[in-house]
Amino acid sequence: MEIIGEKINGAIPSVAEAIATRNADKIKELAFIQAEAGADYLDVCAGTKPEEEVDTLKWLLEIVQNAVETPICIDSPDAQVLVHVLPEISHIGLINSVSNEGNKCEVLFPALAQTAWKIVALTCNDEGIPARADQKAAIGVDLIEKAGGYGIDPSRMYIDPLVFALSAVNDSLLSFNGAIEQIKEKYPTVHFTSGLSNISYGMPRRKIINQNFLAMALSAGMDSAIIDPTNKDVYATILAIEALLGKDKFCKNYNRAYRKGKI
Amino acid sequence: MEIIGEKINGAIPSVAEAIATRNADKIKELAFIQAEAGADYLDVCAGTKPEEEVDTLKWLLEIVQNAVETPICIDSPDAQVLVHVLPEISHIGLINSVSNEGNKCEVLFPALAQTAWKIVALTCNDEGIPARADQKAAIGVDLIEKAGGYGIDPSRMYIDPLVFALSAVNDSLLSFNGAIEQIKEKYPTVHFTSGLSNISYGMPRRKIINQNFLAMALSAGMDSAIIDPTNKDVYATILAIEALLGKDKFCKNYNRAYRKGKI
Repeated sequence: MEIIGEKINGAIPSVAEAIATRNADKIKELAFIQAEAGADYLDVCAGTKPEEEVDTLKWLLEIVQNAVETPICIDSPDAQVLVHVLPEISHIGLINSVSNEGNKCEVLFPALAQTAWKIVALTCNDEGIPARADQKAAIGVDLIEKAGGYGIDPSRMYIDPLVFALSAVNDSLLSFNGAIEQIKEKYPTVHFTSGLSNISYGMPRRKIINQNFLAMALSAGMDSAIIDPTNKDVYATILAIEALLGKDKFCKNYNRAYRKGKI
Repeated sequence: MEIIGEKINGAIPSVAEAIATRNADKIKELAFIQAEAGADYLDVCAGTKPEEEVDTLKWLLEIVQNAVETPICIDSPDAQVLVHVLPEISHIGLINSVSNEGNKCEVLFPALAQTAWKIVALTCNDEGIPARADQKAAIGVDLIEKAGGYGIDPSRMYIDPLVFALSAVNDSLLSFNGAIEQIKEKYPTVHFTSGLSNISYGMPRRKIINQNFLAMALSAGMDSAIIDPTNKDVYATILAIEALLGKDKFCKNYNRAYRKGKI
Protein backbone atom coordinates (compact mmCIF):
# COMPACT_ATOMS: atom_id res chain seq x y z
CA MET A 1 0.00 0.00 0.00
CA GLU A 2 1.42 3.35 -1.07
CA ILE A 3 0.33 6.63 0.48
CA ILE A 4 0.12 9.83 -1.54
CA GLY A 5 0.11 12.74 0.93
CA GLU A 6 -2.62 15.20 -0.03
CA LYS A 7 -1.82 18.22 2.13
CA ILE A 8 0.18 20.43 -0.28
CA ASN A 9 -2.75 21.54 -2.39
CA GLY A 10 -3.75 25.13 -3.15
CA ALA A 11 -7.41 24.13 -3.02
CA ILE A 12 -6.98 23.95 0.79
CA PRO A 13 -7.56 27.51 2.11
CA SER A 14 -4.56 27.54 4.51
CA VAL A 15 -2.28 26.35 1.69
CA ALA A 16 -3.73 28.95 -0.72
CA GLU A 17 -2.87 31.57 1.92
CA ALA A 18 0.68 30.21 2.25
CA ILE A 19 1.05 30.33 -1.54
CA ALA A 20 -0.34 33.88 -1.78
CA THR A 21 2.04 35.14 0.91
CA ARG A 22 4.95 32.95 -0.26
CA ASN A 23 5.15 31.42 3.22
CA ALA A 24 7.85 28.82 2.56
CA ASP A 25 7.96 27.63 6.18
CA LYS A 26 4.33 26.50 6.04
CA ILE A 27 4.96 24.42 2.88
CA LYS A 28 8.16 22.99 4.32
CA GLU A 29 6.28 21.99 7.46
CA LEU A 30 3.57 20.22 5.40
CA ALA A 31 6.25 18.34 3.46
CA PHE A 32 8.05 17.34 6.61
CA ILE A 33 5.08 16.13 8.67
CA GLN A 34 3.73 14.04 5.80
CA ALA A 35 7.11 12.45 5.05
CA GLU A 36 7.57 11.76 8.76
CA ALA A 37 4.08 10.22 8.99
CA GLY A 38 4.86 7.73 6.24
CA ALA A 39 3.88 9.28 2.88
CA ASP A 40 5.41 7.46 -0.12
CA TYR A 41 4.68 10.42 -2.42
CA LEU A 42 3.85 14.07 -1.74
CA ASP A 43 1.12 15.50 -3.95
CA VAL A 44 1.98 19.04 -5.09
CA CYS A 45 -0.92 20.99 -6.59
CA ALA A 46 -0.97 24.76 -7.14
CA GLY A 47 -4.73 25.27 -7.30
CA THR A 48 -4.14 28.81 -8.52
CA LYS A 49 -5.31 30.71 -11.62
CA PRO A 50 -3.92 29.07 -14.82
CA GLU A 51 -1.56 31.98 -15.55
CA GLU A 52 0.09 31.61 -12.10
CA GLU A 53 0.21 27.82 -12.05
CA VAL A 54 3.68 27.17 -13.47
CA ASP A 55 5.39 29.75 -11.25
CA THR A 56 3.53 28.50 -8.19
CA LEU A 57 4.43 24.87 -8.90
CA LYS A 58 8.10 25.77 -9.39
CA TRP A 59 8.10 27.62 -6.05
CA LEU A 60 6.38 24.72 -4.26
CA LEU A 61 8.64 22.11 -5.85
CA GLU A 62 11.82 23.87 -4.82
CA ILE A 63 10.72 24.08 -1.19
CA VAL A 64 9.42 20.51 -0.99
CA GLN A 65 12.42 18.93 -2.71
CA ASN A 66 14.84 20.80 -0.46
CA ALA A 67 12.87 19.80 2.64
CA VAL A 68 12.47 16.04 2.15
CA GLU A 69 13.60 13.12 -0.03
CA THR A 70 10.05 11.85 -0.70
CA PRO A 71 9.12 11.45 -4.39
CA ILE A 72 6.76 14.08 -5.81
CA CYS A 73 3.24 13.43 -7.11
CA ILE A 74 2.95 16.38 -9.46
CA ASP A 75 -0.69 17.38 -9.76
CA SER A 76 -2.36 19.58 -12.39
CA PRO A 77 -5.48 19.39 -14.55
CA ASP A 78 -3.37 20.84 -17.41
CA ALA A 79 -1.20 18.31 -19.31
CA GLN A 80 0.93 21.10 -20.83
CA VAL A 81 1.72 22.45 -17.35
CA LEU A 82 2.75 18.97 -16.19
CA VAL A 83 5.12 18.56 -19.15
CA HIS A 84 6.46 22.08 -18.57
CA VAL A 85 7.43 21.52 -14.91
CA LEU A 86 8.88 18.02 -15.33
CA PRO A 87 12.48 19.30 -15.71
CA GLU A 88 12.16 20.98 -12.27
CA ILE A 89 11.61 17.65 -10.54
CA SER A 90 14.53 15.53 -9.35
CA HIS A 91 12.42 13.49 -6.88
CA ILE A 92 10.71 11.57 -9.65
CA GLY A 93 7.42 9.97 -8.64
CA LEU A 94 3.87 10.21 -9.97
CA ILE A 95 2.20 12.32 -12.65
CA ASN A 96 -1.35 13.25 -11.56
CA SER A 97 -3.05 12.84 -13.98
CA VAL A 98 -3.86 11.63 -17.46
CA SER A 99 -7.33 10.64 -18.73
CA ASN A 100 -9.14 10.20 -22.03
CA GLU A 101 -10.15 13.88 -22.01
CA GLY A 102 -8.96 15.97 -24.95
CA ASN A 103 -5.38 15.29 -26.06
CA LYS A 104 -3.95 14.56 -22.60
CA CYS A 105 -2.59 11.14 -23.63
CA GLU A 106 -0.94 12.54 -26.75
CA VAL A 107 0.71 15.32 -24.72
CA LEU A 108 1.81 13.28 -21.71
CA PHE A 109 2.70 9.78 -22.89
CA PRO A 110 5.46 10.82 -25.35
CA ALA A 111 7.00 13.10 -22.71
CA LEU A 112 6.96 10.31 -20.10
CA ALA A 113 7.90 7.36 -22.30
CA GLN A 114 11.67 7.39 -21.70
CA THR A 115 11.44 8.40 -18.03
CA ALA A 116 10.89 6.59 -14.70
CA TRP A 117 7.64 8.49 -13.97
CA LYS A 118 4.60 6.56 -12.87
CA ILE A 119 1.20 7.80 -14.03
CA VAL A 120 -2.19 8.34 -12.33
CA ALA A 121 -4.86 7.69 -14.99
CA LEU A 122 -8.48 8.69 -14.42
CA THR A 123 -11.33 6.72 -16.00
CA CYS A 124 -13.05 9.66 -17.67
CA ASN A 125 -13.28 11.08 -21.18
CA ASP A 126 -14.86 14.05 -22.97
CA GLU A 127 -18.32 12.68 -22.19
CA GLY A 128 -17.60 12.76 -18.45
CA ILE A 129 -17.21 10.07 -15.80
CA PRO A 130 -19.04 6.81 -16.49
CA ALA A 131 -20.91 5.13 -13.64
CA ARG A 132 -20.81 1.44 -14.60
CA ALA A 133 -17.89 -0.85 -13.75
CA ASP A 134 -17.49 -2.08 -17.33
CA GLN A 135 -17.43 1.50 -18.68
CA LYS A 136 -14.82 2.55 -16.12
CA ALA A 137 -12.79 -0.58 -16.90
CA ALA A 138 -12.99 0.07 -20.66
CA ILE A 139 -11.47 3.55 -20.28
CA GLY A 140 -8.85 2.21 -17.86
CA VAL A 141 -7.83 -0.52 -20.29
CA ASP A 142 -7.76 1.96 -23.18
CA LEU A 143 -5.41 4.26 -21.20
CA ILE A 144 -3.12 1.34 -20.28
CA GLU A 145 -2.98 0.27 -23.92
CA LYS A 146 -2.38 3.80 -25.23
CA ALA A 147 0.50 4.12 -22.74
CA GLY A 148 1.75 0.72 -23.88
CA GLY A 149 1.92 2.11 -27.41
CA TYR A 150 4.62 4.49 -26.14
CA GLY A 151 6.50 1.70 -24.38
CA ILE A 152 5.09 2.53 -20.94
CA ASP A 153 4.68 -0.72 -18.98
CA PRO A 154 1.29 -1.40 -17.29
CA SER A 155 3.09 -1.58 -13.91
CA ARG A 156 3.75 2.18 -14.20
CA MET A 157 0.01 2.95 -14.37
CA TYR A 158 -2.09 3.93 -11.32
CA ILE A 159 -5.74 3.76 -12.41
CA ASP A 160 -8.26 5.85 -10.43
CA PRO A 161 -11.77 4.52 -11.25
CA LEU A 162 -13.29 7.80 -9.92
CA VAL A 163 -15.78 6.83 -7.23
CA PHE A 164 -19.14 8.67 -7.17
CA ALA A 165 -20.88 9.98 -4.06
CA LEU A 166 -22.75 7.12 -2.43
CA SER A 167 -25.66 9.42 -1.59
CA ALA A 168 -26.26 9.91 -5.32
CA VAL A 169 -25.19 6.54 -6.76
CA ASN A 170 -26.16 3.57 -4.64
CA ASP A 171 -23.76 1.09 -6.22
CA SER A 172 -20.86 3.52 -6.29
CA LEU A 173 -18.41 1.29 -4.37
CA LEU A 174 -19.51 -1.81 -6.26
CA SER A 175 -18.80 -0.12 -9.61
CA PHE A 176 -15.46 1.17 -8.35
CA ASN A 177 -14.41 -2.26 -7.07
CA GLY A 178 -15.84 -3.95 -10.16
CA ALA A 179 -13.68 -1.75 -12.39
CA ILE A 180 -10.59 -2.67 -10.35
CA GLU A 181 -11.37 -6.38 -10.66
CA GLN A 182 -12.02 -6.20 -14.42
CA ILE A 183 -8.83 -4.24 -15.15
CA LYS A 184 -6.74 -6.40 -12.79
CA GLU A 185 -7.87 -9.53 -14.59
CA LYS A 186 -6.47 -8.20 -17.85
CA TYR A 187 -3.44 -6.34 -16.43
CA PRO A 188 -2.47 -7.87 -13.08
CA THR A 189 0.54 -5.56 -12.52
CA VAL A 190 -1.46 -2.31 -12.80
CA HIS A 191 -1.90 -0.20 -9.62
CA PHE A 192 -5.10 1.46 -8.39
CA THR A 193 -5.61 4.63 -6.42
CA SER A 194 -8.31 7.03 -5.22
CA GLY A 195 -9.02 9.96 -2.95
CA LEU A 196 -11.26 9.20 0.02
CA SER A 197 -13.68 12.08 0.31
CA ASN A 198 -15.88 11.87 -2.82
CA ILE A 199 -17.64 8.70 -1.64
CA SER A 200 -19.15 10.40 1.43
CA TYR A 201 -20.23 13.69 -0.15
CA GLY A 202 -23.58 14.84 1.27
CA MET A 203 -23.60 12.33 4.14
CA PRO A 204 -23.14 12.77 7.90
CA ARG A 205 -20.21 11.22 9.81
CA ARG A 206 -18.20 11.19 6.59
CA LYS A 207 -15.11 9.76 8.27
CA ILE A 208 -16.92 6.47 8.92
CA ILE A 209 -17.93 6.18 5.25
CA ASN A 210 -14.45 7.16 4.05
CA GLN A 211 -12.66 4.64 6.25
CA ASN A 212 -14.95 1.77 5.30
CA PHE A 213 -14.63 2.71 1.62
CA LEU A 214 -10.86 2.46 2.12
CA ALA A 215 -11.19 -0.97 3.77
CA MET A 216 -13.42 -2.33 1.03
CA ALA A 217 -11.47 -0.83 -1.90
CA LEU A 218 -8.15 -2.12 -0.52
CA SER A 219 -9.77 -5.55 -0.13
CA ALA A 220 -10.72 -5.42 -3.82
CA GLY A 221 -7.15 -4.65 -4.92
CA MET A 222 -6.64 -0.89 -4.59
CA ASP A 223 -3.01 -0.49 -3.52
CA SER A 224 -2.54 3.22 -2.97
CA ALA A 225 -4.62 6.22 -1.88
CA ILE A 226 -4.45 9.99 -1.81
CA ILE A 227 -4.90 10.76 1.88
CA ASP A 228 -3.70 12.77 4.86
CA PRO A 229 -1.05 10.49 6.39
CA THR A 230 -0.92 12.65 9.53
CA ASN A 231 -4.51 11.61 10.33
CA LYS A 232 -3.90 8.81 12.83
CA ASP A 233 -7.28 7.17 12.31
CA VAL A 234 -6.83 6.95 8.53
CA TYR A 235 -3.27 5.68 8.91
CA ALA A 236 -4.38 3.14 11.53
CA THR A 237 -7.12 1.98 9.16
CA ILE A 238 -4.58 1.37 6.40
CA LEU A 239 -2.23 -0.56 8.68
CA ALA A 240 -5.14 -2.55 10.15
CA ILE A 241 -6.34 -3.53 6.69
CA GLU A 242 -2.85 -4.55 5.59
CA ALA A 243 -2.58 -6.72 8.70
CA LEU A 244 -6.04 -8.22 8.06
CA LEU A 245 -5.08 -8.95 4.44
CA GLY A 246 -2.11 -10.97 5.78
CA LYS A 247 0.41 -8.46 4.40
CA ASP A 248 1.96 -7.47 7.75
CA LYS A 249 3.86 -10.44 9.19
CA PHE A 250 3.20 -10.81 12.94
CA CYS A 251 1.51 -7.37 12.72
CA LYS A 252 4.98 -5.83 13.04
CA ASN A 253 4.23 -2.62 11.10
CA TYR A 254 0.98 -2.08 12.98
CA ASN A 255 2.60 -2.57 16.38
CA ARG A 256 5.67 -0.48 15.47
CA ALA A 257 3.46 2.40 14.28
CA TYR A 258 1.57 2.22 17.58
CA ARG A 259 4.77 2.31 19.63
CA LYS A 260 5.97 5.33 17.63
CA GLY A 261 2.68 7.13 18.29
CA LYS A 262 1.75 7.19 14.59
CA ILE A 263 -1.60 5.43 15.07
CA MET B 1 -27.41 -7.62 8.34
CA GLU B 2 -28.69 -8.94 11.67
CA ILE B 3 -27.34 -7.78 15.02
CA ILE B 4 -27.07 -10.10 18.00
CA GLY B 5 -26.77 -7.91 21.11
CA GLU B 6 -23.96 -9.24 23.32
CA LYS B 7 -24.49 -7.35 26.56
CA ILE B 8 -26.51 -9.86 28.66
CA ASN B 9 -23.65 -12.21 29.40
CA GLY B 10 -22.52 -13.36 32.83
CA ALA B 11 -18.92 -13.33 31.63
CA ILE B 12 -19.12 -9.52 31.83
CA PRO B 13 -18.27 -8.55 35.47
CA SER B 14 -21.12 -6.02 35.88
CA VAL B 15 -23.62 -8.60 34.57
CA ALA B 16 -22.18 -11.30 36.86
CA GLU B 17 -22.74 -8.89 39.74
CA ALA B 18 -26.35 -8.25 38.64
CA ILE B 19 -26.93 -12.02 38.44
CA ALA B 20 -25.36 -12.66 41.85
CA THR B 21 -27.51 -9.99 43.48
CA ARG B 22 -30.59 -10.78 41.35
CA ASN B 23 -30.67 -7.16 40.18
CA ALA B 24 -33.53 -7.43 37.68
CA ASP B 25 -33.51 -3.70 36.85
CA LYS B 26 -29.95 -3.91 35.51
CA ILE B 27 -30.86 -6.82 33.20
CA LYS B 28 -34.06 -5.08 32.07
CA GLU B 29 -32.04 -1.98 31.27
CA LEU B 30 -29.55 -4.00 29.16
CA ALA B 31 -32.44 -5.61 27.27
CA PHE B 32 -34.11 -2.29 26.68
CA ILE B 33 -31.10 -0.27 25.48
CA GLN B 34 -30.02 -3.01 23.06
CA ALA B 35 -33.52 -3.43 21.61
CA GLU B 36 -33.79 0.34 21.28
CA ALA B 37 -30.38 0.54 19.56
CA GLY B 38 -31.48 -1.92 16.89
CA ALA B 39 -30.61 -5.46 18.07
CA ASP B 40 -32.38 -8.19 16.08
CA TYR B 41 -31.63 -10.80 18.78
CA LEU B 42 -30.57 -10.51 22.41
CA ASP B 43 -27.91 -12.98 23.47
CA VAL B 44 -28.65 -14.40 26.94
CA CYS B 45 -25.74 -16.23 28.57
CA ALA B 46 -25.52 -17.14 32.27
CA GLY B 47 -21.77 -17.54 32.54
CA THR B 48 -22.23 -19.08 36.00
CA LYS B 49 -21.15 -22.39 37.52
CA PRO B 50 -22.79 -25.32 35.68
CA GLU B 51 -25.04 -26.20 38.64
CA GLU B 52 -26.51 -22.69 38.69
CA GLU B 53 -26.83 -22.26 34.93
CA VAL B 54 -30.40 -23.43 34.34
CA ASP B 55 -31.84 -21.38 37.21
CA THR B 56 -29.88 -18.31 36.13
CA LEU B 57 -31.00 -18.62 32.52
CA LYS B 58 -34.65 -19.00 33.58
CA TRP B 59 -34.36 -15.87 35.73
CA LEU B 60 -32.68 -13.89 32.91
CA LEU B 61 -35.17 -15.11 30.30
CA GLU B 62 -38.19 -14.09 32.34
CA ILE B 63 -36.86 -10.56 32.80
CA VAL B 64 -35.74 -10.08 29.20
CA GLN B 65 -38.92 -11.49 27.64
CA ASN B 66 -41.10 -9.29 29.86
CA ALA B 67 -39.01 -6.22 29.01
CA VAL B 68 -38.84 -6.37 25.20
CA GLU B 69 -40.24 -8.22 22.19
CA THR B 70 -36.81 -8.93 20.66
CA PRO B 71 -36.11 -12.61 19.87
CA ILE B 72 -33.70 -14.39 22.22
CA CYS B 73 -30.31 -15.81 21.24
CA ILE B 74 -29.99 -18.45 23.96
CA ASP B 75 -26.32 -19.03 24.71
CA SER B 76 -24.71 -21.93 26.56
CA PRO B 77 -21.73 -24.23 26.00
CA ASP B 78 -23.94 -27.10 27.29
CA ALA B 79 -26.32 -28.62 24.73
CA GLN B 80 -28.38 -30.31 27.48
CA VAL B 81 -28.90 -26.93 29.18
CA LEU B 82 -30.06 -25.40 25.91
CA VAL B 83 -32.61 -28.17 25.37
CA HIS B 84 -33.72 -27.85 28.98
CA VAL B 85 -34.52 -24.12 28.83
CA LEU B 86 -36.16 -24.12 25.38
CA PRO B 87 -39.70 -24.43 26.83
CA GLU B 88 -39.11 -21.20 28.79
CA ILE B 89 -38.62 -19.19 25.60
CA SER B 90 -41.56 -17.65 23.78
CA HIS B 91 -39.43 -15.12 21.86
CA ILE B 92 -38.00 -17.78 19.59
CA GLY B 93 -34.75 -16.80 17.92
CA LEU B 94 -31.28 -18.31 17.81
CA ILE B 95 -29.64 -21.26 19.58
CA ASN B 96 -26.00 -20.44 20.42
CA SER B 97 -24.46 -22.92 19.68
CA VAL B 98 -23.92 -26.30 18.11
CA SER B 99 -20.60 -27.64 16.81
CA ASN B 100 -18.99 -30.97 15.97
CA GLU B 101 -17.81 -31.35 19.58
CA GLY B 102 -19.05 -34.41 21.48
CA ASN B 103 -22.70 -35.28 20.90
CA LYS B 104 -23.95 -31.69 20.54
CA CYS B 105 -25.55 -32.32 17.14
CA GLU B 106 -27.30 -35.46 18.35
CA VAL B 107 -28.70 -33.64 21.37
CA LEU B 108 -29.72 -30.39 19.69
CA PHE B 109 -30.86 -31.17 16.15
CA PRO B 110 -33.69 -33.58 17.11
CA ALA B 111 -34.96 -31.08 19.70
CA LEU B 112 -34.90 -28.22 17.17
CA ALA B 113 -36.11 -30.09 14.08
CA GLN B 114 -39.82 -29.31 14.38
CA THR B 115 -39.34 -25.76 15.71
CA ALA B 116 -38.72 -22.32 14.20
CA TRP B 117 -35.35 -21.95 15.98
CA LYS B 118 -32.34 -20.82 13.98
CA ILE B 119 -28.94 -22.26 14.91
CA VAL B 120 -25.46 -20.80 15.41
CA ALA B 121 -22.99 -23.51 14.35
CA LEU B 122 -19.29 -23.24 15.21
CA THR B 123 -16.64 -24.77 12.96
CA CYS B 124 -14.87 -26.79 15.63
CA ASN B 125 -14.77 -30.43 16.71
CA ASP B 126 -13.15 -32.58 19.38
CA GLU B 127 -9.73 -31.84 17.91
CA GLY B 128 -10.20 -28.10 18.36
CA ILE B 129 -10.61 -25.18 15.96
CA PRO B 130 -8.97 -25.66 12.57
CA ALA B 131 -7.03 -22.76 11.05
CA ARG B 132 -7.36 -23.36 7.31
CA ALA B 133 -10.36 -22.14 5.28
CA ASP B 134 -11.03 -25.56 3.74
CA GLN B 135 -10.97 -27.24 7.17
CA LYS B 136 -13.38 -24.67 8.60
CA ALA B 137 -15.62 -25.03 5.54
CA ALA B 138 -15.60 -28.85 5.81
CA ILE B 139 -16.91 -28.72 9.40
CA GLY B 140 -19.47 -26.05 8.43
CA VAL B 141 -20.74 -28.16 5.55
CA ASP B 142 -20.86 -31.25 7.76
CA LEU B 143 -22.97 -29.39 10.35
CA ILE B 144 -25.34 -28.08 7.66
CA GLU B 145 -25.74 -31.60 6.28
CA LYS B 146 -26.23 -33.20 9.68
CA ALA B 147 -28.95 -30.60 10.41
CA GLY B 148 -30.43 -31.35 6.98
CA GLY B 149 -30.73 -34.98 8.05
CA TYR B 150 -33.23 -33.79 10.70
CA GLY B 151 -35.15 -31.69 8.18
CA ILE B 152 -33.49 -28.42 9.25
CA ASP B 153 -33.14 -26.17 6.18
CA PRO B 154 -29.70 -24.60 5.46
CA SER B 155 -31.33 -21.14 5.70
CA ARG B 156 -31.80 -21.76 9.44
CA MET B 157 -28.05 -22.20 9.98
CA TYR B 158 -25.72 -19.37 11.12
CA ILE B 159 -22.16 -20.61 10.64
CA ASP B 160 -19.43 -18.99 12.77
CA PRO B 161 -16.04 -19.85 11.18
CA LEU B 162 -14.29 -18.91 14.47
CA VAL B 163 -11.71 -16.28 13.63
CA PHE B 164 -8.27 -16.56 15.27
CA ALA B 165 -6.28 -13.68 16.76
CA LEU B 166 -4.47 -11.88 13.95
CA SER B 167 -1.42 -11.42 16.17
CA ALA B 168 -0.99 -15.21 16.28
CA VAL B 169 -2.31 -16.26 12.86
CA ASN B 170 -1.36 -13.91 10.05
CA ASP B 171 -3.99 -15.13 7.57
CA SER B 172 -6.77 -15.27 10.13
CA LEU B 173 -9.20 -13.03 8.23
CA LEU B 174 -8.36 -14.67 4.91
CA SER B 175 -9.18 -18.15 6.32
CA PHE B 176 -12.38 -16.83 7.91
CA ASN B 177 -13.53 -15.20 4.67
CA GLY B 178 -12.36 -18.18 2.63
CA ALA B 179 -14.52 -20.50 4.73
CA ILE B 180 -17.54 -18.22 4.17
CA GLU B 181 -16.97 -18.22 0.42
CA GLN B 182 -16.51 -22.00 0.21
CA ILE B 183 -19.64 -22.75 2.28
CA LYS B 184 -21.71 -20.11 0.47
CA GLU B 185 -20.83 -21.63 -2.88
CA LYS B 186 -22.35 -24.93 -1.77
CA TYR B 187 -25.20 -23.54 0.37
CA PRO B 188 -26.06 -20.00 -0.79
CA THR B 189 -28.90 -19.52 1.73
CA VAL B 190 -26.76 -20.19 4.81
CA HIS B 191 -26.04 -17.27 7.17
CA PHE B 192 -22.69 -16.37 8.74
CA THR B 193 -21.92 -14.74 12.06
CA SER B 194 -19.03 -13.91 14.41
CA GLY B 195 -18.04 -11.97 17.47
CA LEU B 196 -15.67 -9.06 16.88
CA SER B 197 -13.11 -9.18 19.64
CA ASN B 198 -11.10 -12.38 19.03
CA ILE B 199 -9.45 -11.00 15.90
CA SER B 200 -7.69 -8.16 17.77
CA TYR B 201 -6.53 -10.11 20.84
CA GLY B 202 -3.07 -8.98 21.93
CA MET B 203 -2.99 -5.88 19.69
CA PRO B 204 -3.20 -2.16 20.50
CA ARG B 205 -6.11 0.03 19.30
CA ARG B 206 -8.30 -3.09 19.09
CA LYS B 207 -11.36 -1.11 17.98
CA ILE B 208 -9.68 -0.25 14.67
CA ILE B 209 -8.89 -3.92 13.99
CA ASN B 210 -12.39 -5.03 15.04
CA GLN B 211 -14.17 -2.50 12.84
CA ASN B 212 -12.08 -3.30 9.78
CA PHE B 213 -12.57 -7.02 10.39
CA LEU B 214 -16.31 -6.32 10.40
CA ALA B 215 -16.08 -4.37 7.12
CA MET B 216 -14.07 -7.08 5.39
CA ALA B 217 -16.08 -10.03 6.73
CA LEU B 218 -19.38 -8.37 5.74
CA SER B 219 -17.93 -7.74 2.29
CA ALA B 220 -17.20 -11.48 2.02
CA GLY B 221 -20.76 -12.47 2.89
CA MET B 222 -21.06 -12.46 6.69
CA ASP B 223 -24.60 -11.23 7.38
CA SER B 224 -24.84 -11.03 11.15
CA ALA B 225 -22.55 -10.34 14.11
CA ILE B 226 -22.52 -10.62 17.88
CA ILE B 227 -21.81 -7.05 18.96
CA ASP B 228 -22.75 -4.21 21.29
CA PRO B 229 -25.43 -2.33 19.31
CA THR B 230 -25.26 0.59 21.75
CA ASN B 231 -21.70 1.30 20.60
CA LYS B 232 -22.30 4.08 18.07
CA ASP B 233 -19.05 3.55 16.19
CA VAL B 234 -19.72 -0.16 15.66
CA TYR B 235 -23.32 0.51 14.64
CA ALA B 236 -22.21 3.30 12.28
CA THR B 237 -19.66 0.92 10.76
CA ILE B 238 -22.39 -1.65 10.05
CA LEU B 239 -24.70 0.93 8.46
CA ALA B 240 -21.83 2.43 6.46
CA ILE B 241 -20.88 -0.98 5.10
CA GLU B 242 -24.46 -1.81 4.18
CA ALA B 243 -24.67 1.51 2.31
CA LEU B 244 -21.34 0.83 0.58
CA LEU B 245 -22.55 -2.64 -0.42
CA GLY B 246 -25.52 -0.99 -2.16
CA LYS B 247 -27.99 -2.46 0.37
CA ASP B 248 -29.29 0.86 1.74
CA LYS B 249 -31.25 2.65 -0.96
CA PHE B 250 -30.42 6.38 -1.03
CA CYS B 251 -28.55 5.76 2.26
CA LYS B 252 -31.91 6.11 4.04
CA ASN B 253 -31.11 3.83 6.99
CA TYR B 254 -27.75 5.50 7.53
CA ASN B 255 -29.19 9.00 7.44
CA ARG B 256 -32.18 8.07 9.61
CA ALA B 257 -29.89 6.49 12.24
CA TYR B 258 -27.85 9.69 12.26
CA ARG B 259 -30.91 11.89 12.72
CA LYS B 260 -32.06 9.67 15.61
CA GLY B 261 -28.65 10.00 17.27
CA LYS B 262 -27.94 6.27 16.94
CA ILE B 263 -24.66 6.71 15.06
